[in-house]
Amino acid sequence: MTVSTSERLAQLRELMRKPENNVDAYVVPSEDQHGSEYIASCDERRAWISGFNGSAGCAIITMDKALMFTDGRYFLQASEQMDQNWELMKQGLPGIPTWQDYLTTNLPASARIGIDPTLITEKDFKTLSSAKESEKPEAQDTNTLVPIITNLVDVIWASDRPPRPKNAVVPLEEEYSGESVASKLHRLASAVSSNTPKPRALVLTALDDIAWLFNLRGSDIAYNPVFFSYAVVHFHSSEELDNSKNPHAVLFLQRNAIEHGDLKSVLGPQIEIRPYEDIWEYLKDLGNQLRSISAEKSQEKLVLISDKASFAVAQAVGEDIINALPSPITVLKAIKNSTELEGFRQSHIRDGIALARYFSWLEEKLTEEGKKLTEWEGAEQLEKFRSELPLFKGLSFDTISSTGPNGAIIHYSPDPKDCAVIERDQIYLCDSGAQFLDGTTDVTRTWHFGTPTDEEKRTATRVLQGHIAIDSAIFPNGTTGYIIDSWARKALWKDGLDFRHGTGHGVGHYLNVHEGPHGIGTRITSNASPLKAGMIVTNEPGYYADGKYGVRIENVLIIKEVETPWNFGDKGFLGFECVTIHDRGVDDAYVVFFRCPIQTNW
Amino acid sequence: MTVSTSERLAQLRELMRKPENNVDAYVVPSEDQHGSEYIASCDERRAWISGFNGSAGCAIITMDKALMFTDGRYFLQASEQMDQNWELMKQGLPGIPTWQDYLTTNLPASARIGIDPTLITEKDFKTLSSAKESEKPEAQDTNTLVPIITNLVDVIWASDRPPRPKNAVVPLEEEYSGESVASKLHRLASAVSSNTPKPRALVLTALDDIAWLFNLRGSDIAYNPVFFSYAVVHFHSSEELDNSKNPHAVLFLQRNAIEHGDLKSVLGPQIEIRPYEDIWEYLKDLGNQLRSISAEKSQEKLVLISDKASFAVAQAVGEDIINALPSPITVLKAIKNSTELEGFRQSHIRDGIALARYFSWLEEKLTEEGKKLTEWEGAEQLEKFRSELPLFKGLSFDTISSTGPNGAIIHYSPDPKDCAVIERDQIYLCDSGAQFLDGTTDVTRTWHFGTPTDEEKRTATRVLQGHIAIDSAIFPNGTTGYIIDSWARKALWKDGLDFRHGTGHGVGHYLNVHEGPHGIGTRITSNASPLKAGMIVTNEPGYYADGKYGVRIENVLIIKEVETPWNFGDKGFLGFECVTIHDRGVDDAYVVFFRCPIQTNW
Repeated sequence: MTVSTSERLAQLRELMRKPENNVDAYVVPSEDQHGSEYIASCDERRAWISGFNGSAGCAIITMDKALMFTDGRYFLQASEQMDQNWELMKQGLPGIPTWQDYLTTNLPASARIGIDPTLITEKDFKTLSSAKESEKPEAQDTNTLVPIITNLVDVIWASDRPPRPKNAVVPLEEEYSGESVASKLHRLASAVSSNTPKPRALVLTALDDIAWLFNLRGSDIAYNPVFFSYAVVHFHSSEELDNSKNPHAVLFLQRNAIEHGDLKSVLGPQIEIRPYEDIWEYLKDLGNQLRSISAEKSQEKLVLISDKASFAVAQAVGEDIINALPSPITVLKAIKNSTELEGFRQSHIRDGIALARYFSWLEEKLTEEGKKLTEWEGAEQLEKFRSELPLFKGLSFDTISSTGPNGAIIHYSPDPKDCAVIERDQIYLCDSGAQFLDGTTDVTRTWHFGTPTDEEKRTATRVLQGHIAIDSAIFPNGTTGYIIDSWARKALWKDGLDFRHGTGHGVGHYLNVHEGPHGIGTRITSNASPLKAGMIVTNEPGYYADGKYGVRIENVLIIKEVETPWNFGDKGFLGFECVTIHDRGVDDAYVVFFRCPIQTNW
Repeated sequence: MTVSTSERLAQLRELMRKPENNVDAYVVPSEDQHGSEYIASCDERRAWISGFNGSAGCAIITMDKALMFTDGRYFLQASEQMDQNWELMKQGLPGIPTWQDYLTTNLPASARIGIDPTLITEKDFKTLSSAKESEKPEAQDTNTLVPIITNLVDVIWASDRPPRPKNAVVPLEEEYSGESVASKLHRLASAVSSNTPKPRALVLTALDDIAWLFNLRGSDIAYNPVFFSYAVVHFHSSEELDNSKNPHAVLFLQRNAIEHGDLKSVLGPQIEIRPYEDIWEYLKDLGNQLRSISAEKSQEKLVLISDKASFAVAQAVGEDIINALPSPITVLKAIKNSTELEGFRQSHIRDGIALARYFSWLEEKLTEEGKKLTEWEGAEQLEKFRSELPLFKGLSFDTISSTGPNGAIIHYSPDPKDCAVIERDQIYLCDSGAQFLDGTTDVTRTWHFGTPTDEEKRTATRVLQGHIAIDSAIFPNGTTGYIIDSWARKALWKDGLDFRHGTGHGVGHYLNVHEGPHGIGTRITSNASPLKAGMIVTNEPGYYADGKYGVRIENVLIIKEVETPWNFGDKGFLGFECVTIHDRGVDDAYVVFFRCPIQTNW
């Protein structure tokens, strides 16, 4: 399963030693220039250099070490995929530093650390730089972060590197989006107007932010209907609005996208399209440009960038940055309008048809026909059933079709050429989802088509109890997913069980299957954004017995206002509407998993 | 119920205007010089200036305003106790700043803010100062915090101010403490030795830290068996230890305490006693003194102070402060040894006898004899029963004996001269506790001796369900009280109910009834210290219907290791042992409160 990385690492270290670079360590993050979680294969630098292709992780290569920092979801997968050159750093376990902490405290004094400035956020770059300073304030020999414009992995990854996709960008009709671009721009302007100082422009770098705002979709990244782009939104004063020459927004798209005939007429004259590569020059001139069209020549900072924007973007805008705040679009996008919510309901009904067809097909094959089916063949059949549904646009992520021990690899996906046969007498875990024009789905079901063991029954019951605790949750406005995460774990903890991933994540509307700002989880970041009515969140507790089996039960929930007998402090209370098609009632739900009577005394 | 504060405020404002002070605002915190929560009556400056005598709150007086910042526990009480001069700032409600935020953002530019440097922590002083700077980094006219050595309230509070207590300081036998002072000093030295740089001395300012470390108890503050003191602990190198002239610790006590004959012989020659007032000169010279007894004349910082130490202490130590960390004693003290734990069990058994006697006496008086009893008479009778018990040393806080609407005033205590008659047909809430030589108790029971309404039954059931959720909790090592706090609220939230206080606090061993560092609550501070085996924590969810009634159910729990069928990640799992005497089983427990059948379908 492993790729040999000796030659790649040797070449990289040679580049690191070159006088123009001269670095002792080189950081290879997972993200692309847009901070994307899922990335195009041309951007899979971290996977190429290390062999580990999970969605999260950061590589640090020094002259004598190659370290992979990843979290609990990927401990097993990373250790299986990486060769002997690599050391796995299990972030979250006691005594294991984060990659940021490692750079700050574990490297020798006066080490030079190279990084591609387009692949690290301004915030991380500054935090790392200032952490170093505060660590040893008096010392002159602290480590230095060195932005290296030419990505060193790109230099050695030449022959077999896939080209950058430049696929068509297409409008998403208002029938599905539920809101015009003009209305979104208006709401965005009003959302940022309370900022002090008031921004004159906002730089957008996250691909799903741009797709949402302009009601456009693409296919540059597998499973994510986004397209490579940057955008700058202008906030005009009322007099500037009268001048039709002032654009409302500039969208930076790759060439093929611009050539797409319909786009200009759909977006209208106030949204200018420019080539993708021109963003850097545009940002460098943005401050001057804003001052030239403004009535008063203000010396105030004018440009808002998001805290997910790269250090390179921040450098290009320069002195004119107000500050790096969470993108105001992230919150607007997370609260779905009624069209989007109805789309979620309808797309989940259709998705449920494919799932029911697949699981009944699979049961028949395994139990009645006694067929040998691989995990890959299962996933293919499920995709086939989904692809027959109206408004289907593709999968929302790699189908996790896993039998027995593979179910314990949390983000496993079967290799078509080399994967296991689905065993009737092992637990089968299937986590899958689709993109529909009217919504995105993400659902996990765990089955046993034979006779489960007592341990399997008990642990799966605990997972189900945690799932039900979230499904039936009621909580006051202002509550975060951090606060209710432990409800999903309470039943598991009772038996000394737990799981090393979050309980739930936001889901985009015909967009990325993982979407912020909220979530239900143990990371303190999920304590920053309260759950709000109209948001979508998954409910997916699990339990993983390494080398044996995995159990996960996942539905998609709409957060909604609920009626309660009292309304303490006039806060208003929230609960969930489950849109994934499922049997209600505890007994039925249990039967879905194991077809044996529930033990209610657990 | 209110005291007229017009004359006091006029005098204070006159002092604020004087050239030597010249401040636009003056801050009067609750705490004494030791950051105590409960304070001696001579230190009740905030209560005297405002009339509000709750345990938490901070007053800010400007030339035209008098503001009282307090939290949800005290909204009702503060608004009832304060006269028309005062404006109540309900901290925690949307849009209401904390007193710190108010000073930073709501005062006019270049305001001068006076504060007694012995009554604010170094951390708060610095945070306030730097918050101001970062708020308007370029402006020259930012507000200034002005330490005023002479407390301005003390100047005007002359004739009727009680004298400072100087009561006897007495040793707590090892039979009760379970550990010698020498052993505690040894463990303390080992706990701080991992600090970089390694401290040579630790300054102790919290009265319960000092009482615990030296196995001493006093009675300078009502309900808290502590005594006014400071202490400096020295950490010697092995060669210095041989020199018998080097003290292991210096204890600063008030005169009468020093005159106490036994104390010197109990503490031994290595613990030096000096007069309380000498701490300031001692701290100023501490760095030089440490360098003079040390073999090498190190220029490193040498002195550890706690983050609860006052700005005045930090100023006295000066450049030699390493940094202000949570007191290492707080964590040592929180984890009880087996003698202390057994003392908690035994003292709670005795305490339960007094409670059972009292509640049966009260029931008889109200239901059979039809007597008119005031809340105060009830509290007196409970104290009488407690005072008859072996090892009784006093109450651990003012008994909350409250009928009907008074139960909704969370920290109510009946005024002997003017309090309500306990009504048979209203809910009676009694929160009380005692100090015993072998432990401290804190228990709340809520009764109805007549026929409760449906609302009362339902809301009390929700409180009980929350109480049981905590009582039966199992969670992995590393879990904080912040994480499980929502378990106490889940049942209440289901009905749109909630309560505006924490779910539980640590309890001292024959020490303060509120003790850190851990707690179960919604404040982020309770996310900083994991719950650990051997700690004590209360379990006290409630519900308060303003103007009608209050419900609270409180037991004291020992945190202990528990056996679970699995042990995920080898973390080890924790649970609770309840030491408050109570009926186990849901039905019985319910009967205790309302003597009517539980409705199990809620």
